[in-house]
Amino acid sequence: MIIDCHGHYTTEPAALQEGRAAQLAALDDPAARAPEPPVIGDDELRASVEGNQLRVLRERGGDLMVLSPRASGMGHHVDDPETARVWAATSNDLVGRLVGLYPERFAGVCQLPQTPGGPLDDAVAELHRCVETLGFVGCNLNPDPSGGFWTAEPLTDEYWFPLYEAMVELDVPAMVHVSGSCNPVFHALGAHYLNADTTAFMQFLTGDLFTRFPTLRFVIPHGGGAVPYHWGRYRGLAERMGRPQPSTLLDNVFFDTCVYHQPGIDLLTRVVPVDNVLFASEMLGAVRGADPESGVGWDDTKVYVDRAGLTDTELSKVFEGNARRVYPRLDAQLTAAGK
Amino acid sequence: MIIDCHGHYTTEPAALQEGRAAQLAALDDPAARAPEPPVIGDDELRASVEGNQLRVLRERGGDLMVLSPRASGMGHHVDDPETARVWAATSNDLVGRLVGLYPERFAGVCQLPQTPGGPLDDAVAELHRCVETLGFVGCNLNPDPSGGFWTAEPLTDEYWFPLYEAMVELDVPAMVHVSGSCNPVFHALGAHYLNADTTAFMQFLTGDLFTRFPTLRFVIPHGGGAVPYHWGRYRGLAERMGRPQPSTLLDNVFFDTCVYHQPGIDLLTRVVPVDNVLFASEMLGAVRGADPESGVGWDDTKVYVDRAGLTDTELSKVFEGNARRVYPRLDAQLTAAGK
Repeated sequence: MIIDCHGHYTTEPAALQEGRAAQLAALDDPAARAPEPPVIGDDELRASVEGNQLRVLRERGGDLMVLSPRASGMGHHVDDPETARVWAATSNDLVGRLVGLYPERFAGVCQLPQTPGGPLDDAVAELHRCVETLGFVGCNLNPDPSGGFWTAEPLTDEYWFPLYEAMVELDVPAMVHVSGSCNPVFHALGAHYLNADTTAFMQFLTGDLFTRFPTLRFVIPHGGGAVPYHWGRYRGLAERMGRPQPSTLLDNVFFDTCVYHQPGIDLLTRVVPVDNVLFASEMLGAVRGADPESGVGWDDTKVYVDRAGLTDTELSKVFEGNARRVYPRLDAQLTAAGK
Repeated sequence: MIIDCHGHYTTEPAALQEGRAAQLAALDDPAARAPEPPVIGDDELRASVEGNQLRVLRERGGDLMVLSPRASGMGHHVDDPETARVWAATSNDLVGRLVGLYPERFAGVCQLPQTPGGPLDDAVAELHRCVETLGFVGCNLNPDPSGGFWTAEPLTDEYWFPLYEAMVELDVPAMVHVSGSCNPVFHALGAHYLNADTTAFMQFLTGDLFTRFPTLRFVIPHGGGAVPYHWGRYRGLAERMGRPQPSTLLDNVFFDTCVYHQPGIDLLTRVVPVDNVLFASEMLGAVRGADPESGVGWDDTKVYVDRAGLTDTELSKVFEGNARRVYPRLDAQLTAAGK
């Protein structure tokens, strides 16, 4: 089967974003009552994905998408724990309902109620709730809750350890994924996302996180930002710094295939061992439509992966096996369903 | 001939950094006298490069290196214009003396006396001095003088226009190059440098800078950060945003070859038109020594470029022709010397 490990619910009914707007407005007006949670019916939920993620998934021959709330909408820069808690729960509940409506098509990954520099207790609690109650298989971890001002500690700092302990206990990975950019120097999709991927990898390379948490797992999205393209740089830097080689991170760090042209996927699969590459498209995400030169959808990464010269065994790992290994709760769900 | 368009004077005599330390110490102690400029003799200057940059350049078959002060040492985060002015002048003068000692081996590129958010008058003046008095052929422009806190305006903002006007008037390009990182989340060599490259490109893609300044030219170092690896993403994003395609930037934006493994150089030369790739190694820079697996020096990018499958005509552009086009003052100097 073909598992797309990186999809966002970017086609939410308008009521969700209207509810968010009301929530933020209430923040500025202490007299306002907290808004009611948005009322969205099942038919509306179905309609929001049938013609979008599900249609594209089917058209491209995919079987299952690991779905999380819209990344740019997580809004962790809003520095109010209650707001973050309610917004994460609302967003995750919606994904949870989609998973309930399409259990063969979607698996859930949760947004965490992070705030800039705030304690992680709420994130830990929401992760437990999403995994244990909603059946989610992972989370998105934002290394820069400030939204482009980079005020958080590096991911190797003990600030993050409570969350890592929960991830290890629950045996779920995190995708390292920032939210929108509040800093005008960083375009969210064209700079901030990729910078965060690159930054996180270098933090892992210079820290000893996986000595402390040997079973902790991260997926670095967008093909690892700049990392595979500069793999020699990281190998040379590691040597110069007397650090273990980047390859020693590969029990814990994985890369998705959200790289939107053939040369990029060719490089990724040439440089990164095949056991560490997880198929993903992030549709409907940064890009829409097709390359007018090739006719291939920009984010139709299955085409690029199919053409990357991998053997059938290797393709099977990239499309399915690696995701089942990195997301063991997904594997358990699939196995229970006879898949 | 073979021109390496990206080298830093990273082997400075100790007196230079001691002078810098004294300068910074005087900042904290208003009663202290400004330190004297460091006294460094010509023999000491020669010794600092003979066994280093010049030896490596000769060993690898290079002819000329475009040399600028140590990038991580520019220290633009020190928010004092006088300190920035003196330090840039001191650093540039040293590079100027090296160019004078080895006019056939080095061409000069200057550090600018930037400060976080400060006016650019001093940078404009120093650029004029370095080009008109010292014979330099370009400058290094730091898009984040804060050193990892990213408080500056995007490179497309009019804040930068006075400097661009000077660059256009003098007909010199800028390499977009940050200095060290003061933010613990960003490793300078493994994250901050690459992030800046990626960020700058996306700023250019979303702005209209080259409509206003059609002859302005930038070299994005380190192979363009994440950009060539994600070229399809940028093409798709441009289409989605209704912006001109990335290819329309290529009269103004160029990439160097500081990518330290064969797959990276193969991707760069496959994706970016050959007219926009400038040979460079950044030695002695981020990496030292050789890949134990291949025996090739990490930053011996000539080996990777030689093996990238380019024709002789294409190699000639990457090694020489493009640099002479992007740095016309270098071309004029070489032509005057009968080269």
